[in-house]
Amino acid sequence: MILALAGGVGGARLAKGLAAVLPPEHLSIIVNVGDDFEHLGLLVCPDLDTVCYTLGGVNNAAQGWGLEGESWAFMDALSKLGGENWFNLGDRDLATHITRKAMLGRETLSAITAYFAAKLSIAHKIAPMSDDPVRSIVHTDEGELAFQHYFVRRRAEPRFRSIRFDGVEQARPSPAFMAALDNPELEAIIICPSNPVLSIAPILALPGIRARLDSRKVPIVAVSPFIGGKAIKGPAAKIMDEIGIATTPAGLASYYGGLLDGIVIDHADSATDEPNIALHVTDTLMRDISDQRRLASETILFARSLIR
Amino acid sequence: MILALAGGVGGARLAKGLAAVLPPEHLSIIVNVGDDFEHLGLLVCPDLDTVCYTLGGVNNAAQGWGLEGESWAFMDALSKLGGENWFNLGDRDLATHITRKAMLGRETLSAITAYFAAKLSIAHKIAPMSDDPVRSIVHTDEGELAFQHYFVRRRAEPRFRSIRFDGVEQARPSPAFMAALDNPELEAIIICPSNPVLSIAPILALPGIRARLDSRKVPIVAVSPFIGGKAIKGPAAKIMDEIGIATTPAGLASYYGGLLDGIVIDHADSATDEPNIALHVTDTLMRDISDQRRLASETILFARSLIR
Repeated sequence: MILALAGGVGGARLAKGLAAVLPPEHLSIIVNVGDDFEHLGLLVCPDLDTVCYTLGGVNNAAQGWGLEGESWAFMDALSKLGGENWFNLGDRDLATHITRKAMLGRETLSAITAYFAAKLSIAHKIAPMSDDPVRSIVHTDEGELAFQHYFVRRRAEPRFRSIRFDGVEQARPSPAFMAALDNPELEAIIICPSNPVLSIAPILALPGIRARLDSRKVPIVAVSPFIGGKAIKGPAAKIMDEIGIATTPAGLASYYGGLLDGIVIDHADSATDEPNIALHVTDTLMRDISDQRRLASETILFARSLIR
Repeated sequence: MILALAGGVGGARLAKGLAAVLPPEHLSIIVNVGDDFEHLGLLVCPDLDTVCYTLGGVNNAAQGWGLEGESWAFMDALSKLGGENWFNLGDRDLATHITRKAMLGRETLSAITAYFAAKLSIAHKIAPMSDDPVRSIVHTDEGELAFQHYFVRRRAEPRFRSIRFDGVEQARPSPAFMAALDNPELEAIIICPSNPVLSIAPILALPGIRARLDSRKVPIVAVSPFIGGKAIKGPAAKIMDEIGIATTPAGLASYYGGLLDGIVIDHADSATDEPNIALHVTDTLMRDISDQRRLASETILFARSLIR
């Protein structure tokens, strides 16, 4: 049984590959909620939705986020009403946020996510890292910005200094996350090629999670989100630069602070430096489902090879 | 200065005619909120929106409700998610409801309605009858039904027995309604050809309103919503039948219980019966803006002719 930690587009792509090569009972995908935010009275959960839409095959693959064949009449009307239009909510995507908001209060975010996954005919387990609200706040050279204000409204342009996760001290891991961590069949933990600082750090910041990951004595393998020291998409490389960590295998290992047993890196990064942990060198760019399957399979085999 | 009471499609059409023939400072349109309802976490105000959309020229004239050129991607996605899809919310219309919900709490419904009217370049005053929630509950042969469950979900098919207006005892008339009633320049009150039981009764049920209307000693004129004893649209005639009131001039006068000084009726109804109040007989069907203007002008002149 594999536990995958994911967030963002790269994370969703590898999660889709893992789901394509593992039966449902052998995979649990735990997703960042640090970028969730209250917007226009709704609860928007970009990472959960990206993972669900991607595994459900309804995502806009070219764009990376949102739904294929989306329309934007709501946004147009909202703009004409003078509403907050810096965060795009498609007409179909809105049904997700409105349904989630209507279900919240009588259902947990885990239950709502399971409901959405079932509607998308996804057999694999997808769950939020926590049912309690955790909100990433980015400290920048322009001051503190709520995550989506930093990420979308300001396009991650302000200089990143640090990040904190409001509410994380009181947050409990979700039931699915706890169940995966406690599962005697757990073979390995795979950290998807998500932004380490924005998508994975919130999950690792949950109280007790690092200790629990360490104590399980199963291999923890990260798939590097960098190719040739650059991110495929998004500001991961810019942020690593701004906090003074190299976008190399050793930089990544150092950022995760001894947590990792191995890293899957791209050929383009194999000559840069040598962290003191196992490396698997391959083609990490996921253009389509066959790339996703192949990278997922290689990562699982690599992780299994590290079982002590 | 004219005070118009309105609700529904017929009410919106005459309100548009009144706005076309009166300068903004000479007209106040007060709208029913009894059919407002909380749906999917939003506040939907069908009568306010119909009046605003109609005066703003963005309404779907053929359909009677909603926006011209509306799209339905949200409803389609909501249905696929298993959401409550018995009440149609168009993609553009949703921007109204989401913006209203986001503004509520820091703004009154009056202020929000004024904001929407300004965005639609409507110069005339449109205001809810009250900023306090009033919710129509219909007692039927199937039991009590919240208004939209009776009207839309059950298509007004259950037999109507009576209606009550939850919250009306605690509701205060809106500032615009009070200002119009207190305005020394008030010449006449026009009850638009709205459903008397569903759209006008909630307004008249506000504490003190009937007494205030009586005490103003200005003509109160209703435009009949019936032509040949039938409603142009909606269940007004069916409901009048079910409560045993004739859909004739005398029936209408009796329903309003001595409130009216005159009724504008269609030629088709002139031979039915003779209420003990003034009648103006004309063509009351409003096919287009020229009909709306003509009927509005005739109604104003008729009301002025009744000034004591």
